[in-house]
Amino acid sequence: MSEVYAARRTRLREHCNAGGSAAALVTRPANVRYLAGAAPLGAVLLLGKREDLLVCTSPPDDRPHEGRPDDALRAQLLSRPAADAAVAAAELAQNQGADSLAVEEHHLTVARHRELAAAAPGLRLDALGCAVEQLRVVKDEEEISCLRIGAEIADQALGELLESILVGRTERHLALELERRLVDHGADGPAFPTSVATGPHSGRRGHRPTDRRVEEGDFLSVCLGAAYRGYRCEIGRTFVIGTSPADWQIQLYDLVFSAQRAGREALAPGAGYRDVDRAARQVLDFAGYGEGLQPLMGHGVGLEIDEDPQLAPAAMGKLDACVPVTVEPGVHLPGRGGVRIDDTLVVRPEADGGPELLTITTKELLAL
Amino acid sequence: MSEVYAARRTRLREHCNAGGSAAALVTRPANVRYLAGAAPLGAVLLLGKREDLLVCTSPPDDRPHEGRPDDALRAQLLSRPAADAAVAAAELAQNQGADSLAVEEHHLTVARHRELAAAAPGLRLDALGCAVEQLRVVKDEEEISCLRIGAEIADQALGELLESILVGRTERHLALELERRLVDHGADGPAFPTSVATGPHSGRRGHRPTDRRVEEGDFLSVCLGAAYRGYRCEIGRTFVIGTSPADWQIQLYDLVFSAQRAGREALAPGAGYRDVDRAARQVLDFAGYGEGLQPLMGHGVGLEIDEDPQLAPAAMGKLDACVPVTVEPGVHLPGRGGVRIDDTLVVRPEADGGPELLTITTKELLAL
Repeated sequence: MSEVYAARRTRLREHCNAGGSAAALVTRPANVRYLAGAAPLGAVLLLGKREDLLVCTSPPDDRPHEGRPDDALRAQLLSRPAADAAVAAAELAQNQGADSLAVEEHHLTVARHRELAAAAPGLRLDALGCAVEQLRVVKDEEEISCLRIGAEIADQALGELLESILVGRTERHLALELERRLVDHGADGPAFPTSVATGPHSGRRGHRPTDRRVEEGDFLSVCLGAAYRGYRCEIGRTFVIGTSPADWQIQLYDLVFSAQRAGREALAPGAGYRDVDRAARQVLDFAGYGEGLQPLMGHGVGLEIDEDPQLAPAAMGKLDACVPVTVEPGVHLPGRGGVRIDDTLVVRPEADGGPELLTITTKELLAL
Repeated sequence: MSEVYAARRTRLREHCNAGGSAAALVTRPANVRYLAGAAPLGAVLLLGKREDLLVCTSPPDDRPHEGRPDDALRAQLLSRPAADAAVAAAELAQNQGADSLAVEEHHLTVARHRELAAAAPGLRLDALGCAVEQLRVVKDEEEISCLRIGAEIADQALGELLESILVGRTERHLALELERRLVDHGADGPAFPTSVATGPHSGRRGHRPTDRRVEEGDFLSVCLGAAYRGYRCEIGRTFVIGTSPADWQIQLYDLVFSAQRAGREALAPGAGYRDVDRAARQVLDFAGYGEGLQPLMGHGVGLEIDEDPQLAPAAMGKLDACVPVTVEPGVHLPGRGGVRIDDTLVVRPEADGGPELLTITTKELLAL
């Protein structure tokens, strides 16, 4: 793996040098992990003029789920406890003879930026922008393999839940049980807080579980994901509780299903981000649900659960092959509930069979 | 409760006006919640020249555990999806006629600060500093009551775990079970990721659970806490597995217990932060464990699990009454394991009986 990290750092260094910066400081944890193999708490990565350094405030420990630092990268442990690694890294950059340092202005706070400038007055602080986030958009097969395993784990956890008795249990308990099952099946942990929404809560994006209990006739929508070797996937499904769904439930489900299918079918190398959004959104819009829809119909996933690209109406850019994204339209009717259907897929050219579906749990409307 | 939030906002407004700022923008979520009663995702609080506003990107929903916004505070919902609430709040501040706005430079990123400046060019952006964090240090009895309930919940969850079979179970499963029990007993959720450390991992501060299983003869150290109405407490205990602890285990336990007691006994209004740290630290130091100790012996708790004050060697300041803090010394011997003992207490004057212990699980060395 070491060559992978070194190659990523080389690409970033070329980007920085082309922009006129002699060195770069990476502080955002997911970006540190992408370039260094691991992001110990408080650690930052310096792409220095002479040497790259993982600057740590405490010794790395044996947490396999947190990743292993690239062996080829020297770790510099700060001797002062509670020292700030970013400030120390700026001093090190200056000591290596750099006259400029590109920093992540979308992650560094104003206060820390000022501390960096004070600690290394000989450095000009440039903007690195979202260069590392951009490198992260297209995944290699190793990364996709981690996402695929995470999706299998989430499918298993969800499948087991569906076999159990649901009526009478609270959203919070169902969410905790799903998270336990994710870990049982080998996840590092949940990819994000598991969402379980019943009855009037169903269909709400990012609903945080409450003490409401599952009742006969409810819609039940569930959104969960596994983190596996740092990579985070997402699956969302909506079920109906009881033997006979109401007509409005069947109609709403079919509509959201159609929207989600349209979004999935729009995934192709070269498709505009906004076109994928529109493909799903217009189905809901034509049916009269255009008001109050969520701001995006999907997003990239990887080391973070919500990363570039955003599949949203105003998003600029086009999909590439090997970009994993979610497609997750939903409709929520206040006071009644609703439906969300969410898959993680990898964009693939048609010659390779088109989009690769990672989350394979059925999307039929199951009555549980 | 509304008067409480209004009174807090008045204190902050006086602080800002005294510093020459006409308005203030609070972005750090725990600070927003402290002043507004709730911090919906992405929301910020504007203390405006004419009116205070909770600026939200999505409608507040019915999550009782997330707090309820102060009814006396007008919520301004942004119409553009995915708009930045801080940028919108800066525009609103300018529209209210303010010429200056104090912002949380320790929370705002460089990039967002620049967007604020561009969106409201008529505003001078001042530094609010950690003014809200300072207001939060001394708690009222309502806040302490939430911490007390949270501590009871954590004590219950821990007590139940101790009655179950531990040998053969993994750190990760024990941690998940503790978190489930916290929720069973009424917690909003865990106050922080539950730490379960066995054998050679025991005694490590912030150890993240692994797949190592509990074995006979292990030290087992556990650190958990409940969030209750947003308030977060912490308890840590170390146990020994099996009927007969080894001599080194008994000695190390007694030592850490003495250090922790010394720290607890040093808690009094007027005691220096560093003096509390020293009281605990010097016990470990005299015994030859001074190298490699954790950087602090305790810290404040409240809406965040790690807030001011820091009980650390270089910390400046003195304790006040009604400040809840942890006292949590530990020793970890690489390759062998160690001991941590952690309580949450509220500083009280001696006339009121001295420090109030919130986490009451026994600190005898239990052999399980």
